Amino acid sequence: MRVVQEARAAARTLARATTDQKNAALRAIAAALEASRDEILAANRKDVEAAQAAGLSLALVERLTLNEQRLGEMVESVKAVVELPDPVGAVLRSWRRPNGLEIRKVRVPLGLIGIIYESRPNVTSDCASLCLKSGNGVVLRGGAETFRSNQAIGTALKEALRASGLPEGAVATIPTSDRRAVDLLLQLDRYIDVIIPRGGEALIQKIAERSRIPVIKHAKGVCHVYVDEAADLSMAEAITLNAKCQRPATCNAMETLLVHEGIAPAFLPAIITKLRAANVEVRGCDKTRAIVPGLAKASEQDWFTEYLDLILSVKVVASLDEAVEHISRYGSAHSDAIVTSDERHARQFVEAVDSAAVYVNASTRFTDGFQFGLGAEIGISTDRLHARGPMGLEELTTYKYVVYGSGQLRQ
Amino acid sequence: MRVVQEARAAARTLARATTDQKNAALRAIAAALEASRDEILAANRKDVEAAQAAGLSLALVERLTLNEQRLGEMVESVKAVVELPDPVGAVLRSWRRPNGLEIRKVRVPLGLIGIIYESRPNVTSDCASLCLKSGNGVVLRGGAETFRSNQAIGTALKEALRASGLPEGAVATIPTSDRRAVDLLLQLDRYIDVIIPRGGEALIQKIAERSRIPVIKHAKGVCHVYVDEAADLSMAEAITLNAKCQRPATCNAMETLLVHEGIAPAFLPAIITKLRAANVEVRGCDKTRAIVPGLAKASEQDWFTEYLDLILSVKVVASLDEAVEHISRYGSAHSDAIVTSDERHARQFVEAVDSAAVYVNASTRFTDGFQFGLGAEIGISTDRLHARGPMGLEELTTYKYVVYGSGQLRQ
Repeated sequence: MRVVQEARAAARTLARATTDQKNAALRAIAAALEASRDEILAANRKDVEAAQAAGLSLALVERLTLNEQRLGEMVESVKAVVELPDPVGAVLRSWRRPNGLEIRKVRVPLGLIGIIYESRPNVTSDCASLCLKSGNGVVLRGGAETFRSNQAIGTALKEALRASGLPEGAVATIPTSDRRAVDLLLQLDRYIDVIIPRGGEALIQKIAERSRIPVIKHAKGVCHVYVDEAADLSMAEAITLNAKCQRPATCNAMETLLVHEGIAPAFLPAIITKLRAANVEVRGCDKTRAIVPGLAKASEQDWFTEYLDLILSVKVVASLDEAVEHISRYGSAHSDAIVTSDERHARQFVEAVDSAAVYVNASTRFTDGFQFGLGAEIGISTDRLHARGPMGLEELTTYKYVVYGSGQLRQ
Repeated sequence: MRVVQEARAAARTLARATTDQKNAALRAIAAALEASRDEILAANRKDVEAAQAAGLSLALVERLTLNEQRLGEMVESVKAVVELPDPVGAVLRSWRRPNGLEIRKVRVPLGLIGIIYESRPNVTSDCASLCLKSGNGVVLRGGAETFRSNQAIGTALKEALRASGLPEGAVATIPTSDRRAVDLLLQLDRYIDVIIPRGGEALIQKIAERSRIPVIKHAKGVCHVYVDEAADLSMAEAITLNAKCQRPATCNAMETLLVHEGIAPAFLPAIITKLRAANVEVRGCDKTRAIVPGLAKASEQDWFTEYLDLILSVKVVASLDEAVEHISRYGSAHSDAIVTSDERHARQFVEAVDSAAVYVNASTRFTDGFQFGLGAEIGISTDRLHARGPMGLEELTTYKYVVYGSGQLRQ
């Protein structure tokens, strides 16, 4: 694909742009989005009409719809990236060898990043601005259902790059809504350095299977809160409600509550009443159902399930070890919490649970680039290689070694 | 494969082993290799006889042959890993959020690492000891031609783990020489976190194409030395000879010499005479051949080629920019050097060349874990994700975020 080859070449130029050049381009993008407001909203209206005509679900149509407010938020997001520190060029470490060689490990952009995403058109400008600030070219492939919106946003992005003297090819949008374009894209490992899919589990699995390019997966979160025997029960209650109900459709929301059997009789009746009052459907193990009668039984499949909804599985465990075992077997190593007042138990949990984020006495909902203080995020990696958990600007970089000598030869 | 499932479980235990436990196991491995000397050498003799009977090349047979001295070197390598710092548990960064959450980024093992390699049986104990020290389980799959040697070494490794109280399953050797086992292995993304292939370009490409598991490639090095207009010619000569001749079969050896046209007439005749005296076959561009008559002409394909041999392509360039362009187009982003006395030129080169290692006034031959001071290396990554250049113990780890709160809820 010609746009991808162009993006590769443009990425090389962008990698060497100064912070001022990149910030000027980001400001120009914010201005271009505002100036193109009418075109973008008109394109989006056509996408929405087509989606409605095709009978897409209300929730899906809602997700792809832009309005003045959402467009305003897109502009603000781009402006916020101007304020973030430029990760490129930082010396991560430097040292001198006995032979006098001075070695510096220097942060550089990854190169060309492919983003494959669904629905929300704001991803187009969000991802483009994060890639731009980190010196990376980006190939954006949105869903067919937002093709017109993404093309309109892409046009504004390119105008802004051109106006600010950076290569407009550095932000490429795939100029077809043909779904086969994705399969083609995934073969271009000569040009694209990494694929970051953003969307549902099915999309991500399909991409990971087909791609010849390395993929950083942002897959599911089957997150747990374990209420220890030594928990402060009012804190446990607040964390449980927050982790489940504050925004249940996110990957860092709790799906399974684990409760130590020593405090289950004191804790479960009250919390389950409150969860139900918050419209949560509770499914329990046998021990839970013995304490709180009338609950549906959680099946083996429930423990593996990311509901992304107001549904919760509850299990009573005999020990901290059993909680850890459950998390290791059924969890997705995304975000898991212990509520305890016992420091030894906290340490034990933190060491044994190998998840991207392990919490002591806090809600799992904090696994997020903004909440972690990274300033922004391109997503939350559920992989172990390269980046784990929230990915900010630094996670969009790699490094090179720069070695200064005075004629050193290998013996 | 059962051994892989067992290795996964064992890796979880190993991840939490203390430094003392791991060092004791490494010492036990060194002792077991010495104690099993006769069995290992006997198994190796059978491999060698089979290889000779099958008509393998002399070079290949030489590579797979063990003797007392090579076995002694294997033992010493294992002992050396005891002395390296344990990367696991290091706090990479910690910070406090305005809401009081304390976030720590902590180094943890990658998990289970698959190593697929050719010929040299020492890779079995070298890789096992590096994975062990970094808390990782390892699945080792050597070439069919060294199957008996690797099984004998694997048996000694397992005995040592068992004797030192660590799970012996943490070092798995694939119990069949059937080549289809590799295809099966590459599908086990539920159990194996990363595949590191060690071997020729064909092996690595095949694995990268077929694997569902992320692969860190250790692919080819088409390395360049650029002799700038402002170079010290005697330093340029020494670096050229070292980078080409000191060990031509390695990936960090130079394959192409680029010379600025301003000094080509002064530099080329003498260096080409010396290269030829060192048995190097020199192929030149037209300008080179005009200065030094009688050279073979370098073809377009030559510029892309990793000879791994006493062959060198030489090109005269009109500028530093042309040198950078050539490296970007034909190189493999492995190791590239400039020889110059001009600091501005050095800076320009270092910024423009995006290779894993970029050298100023030193031989490309230093791209190596030991030479960089990493203490050891599992290989040299030519990828950009996760690890670039020499991979030591730290590159065999990932991280998790540990977050300490006091009841924080997401707003």
